[in-house]
Amino acid sequence: MTRFSVMTLFPEMIDAGLNVSILARAIDKGLIEINSVNIRDYTDNKHGRVDDYTYGGGAGMLMQAQPIYDCYRAICEEKEVSRVIYVTPQGKPFDQKMAVELSKEEHLVFLCGHYEGIDERVLETIVTDHVSIGDYVLTGGELPAMVMIDAISRHITGVLHNEDSCDTESFTDGLLEYPQYSRPEEWMGKKVPQILLSGDHAKVSAWRHKESLIRTKDRRPDLYEKYIESHPDEKI
Amino acid sequence: MTRFSVMTLFPEMIDAGLNVSILARAIDKGLIEINSVNIRDYTDNKHGRVDDYTYGGGAGMLMQAQPIYDCYRAICEEKEVSRVIYVTPQGKPFDQKMAVELSKEEHLVFLCGHYEGIDERVLETIVTDHVSIGDYVLTGGELPAMVMIDAISRHITGVLHNEDSCDTESFTDGLLEYPQYSRPEEWMGKKVPQILLSGDHAKVSAWRHKESLIRTKDRRPDLYEKYIESHPDEKI
Repeated sequence: MTRFSVMTLFPEMIDAGLNVSILARAIDKGLIEINSVNIRDYTDNKHGRVDDYTYGGGAGMLMQAQPIYDCYRAICEEKEVSRVIYVTPQGKPFDQKMAVELSKEEHLVFLCGHYEGIDERVLETIVTDHVSIGDYVLTGGELPAMVMIDAISRHITGVLHNEDSCDTESFTDGLLEYPQYSRPEEWMGKKVPQILLSGDHAKVSAWRHKESLIRTKDRRPDLYEKYIESHPDEKI
Repeated sequence: MTRFSVMTLFPEMIDAGLNVSILARAIDKGLIEINSVNIRDYTDNKHGRVDDYTYGGGAGMLMQAQPIYDCYRAICEEKEVSRVIYVTPQGKPFDQKMAVELSKEEHLVFLCGHYEGIDERVLETIVTDHVSIGDYVLTGGELPAMVMIDAISRHITGVLHNEDSCDTESFTDGLLEYPQYSRPEEWMGKKVPQILLSGDHAKVSAWRHKESLIRTKDRRPDLYEKYIESHPDEKI
């Protein structure tokens, strides 16, 4: 069983956000385990504080080293830790490849920051990976940690049923997915493309591939250029 | 007041995930409003189904047009809709600039997909923007919608206090943030860099800028190259 421990000031957010749909089923089946731990429970400060001013000045408070370190030690005592991921815009960009790689670990710890950030010394001491989910600023690390746990869990054997698994293909061939249609055949005057009703698998497959190329060129020229480099004959 | 409507199969996930910390305060103050709407409440199917097979074959189910369209119509009747954002890996990458732009709208609707995706015809009919939070695949659109709502809300006047606001600077100068330190001066043998205790603001500021450059070069060579193009004299 893969354990995800989340060091956070808002454990209830983690519990509510991950216990739905496919992940709820994976938890029930004992394939993954979500262990959210409140950093505030580990502070030595008698008023329960976990933050203080920043040396050198600057607006905003910083999360201090002591509560985070003691929280981390408690997590290590329960189960050996594989990697400690600090969720930060100052990190390496998270992608599908990293999700696959991290899915092989047995105990991943996520450290979620708040306020202005975290004292650098505790980061140097415990963090193995600085990871960012994108170039934007958020209130805290909880949502990004949940995003990563979701993306990683999908690669753990048994989490996806067969009928779910093909949607992981979105990035495997480097192209965006083609348009899809379900019942009814006509909706508000819009018809399903005739070719999809033909039953000719080769034609359907060729049509879908062409639609993927068109869509990728239109919406993500960066991915299209990369794909065409290795498939020059498919240029449109 | 800015309204965020979220069309979803898991409204309880949205409510739990956004009603904390800075966003909870913004909701209390009446600056933003989170309106999560269950798509399933709008299906005409007597068994409450919202999905069906995909034309042309392929594993997995597709969300159908009718329930989504009727859900959307109900949302429009309550308040005029500015933009409808479909959360998908097939979208334009979300970034800080888009967060600022979207923060000026009065009513943003997020459409969260599940299963294999959504019938293309309803997307053509109601969606104004296809947006992706990063190149990875997730179980559903709820977490990415929450990520965007968090990033956008921070730019709405009054949501951040003065003491919070400086952390939005992470990407404004195109460099990653410098390391930060809080009390105590010495923790587990590690000392705060002497310069931060000097009280010399010019020196502190120069040190921080240099640390930002070093860190950006190390962790995000793409951002570093871009910065150096417009600041060639700062190359390290």
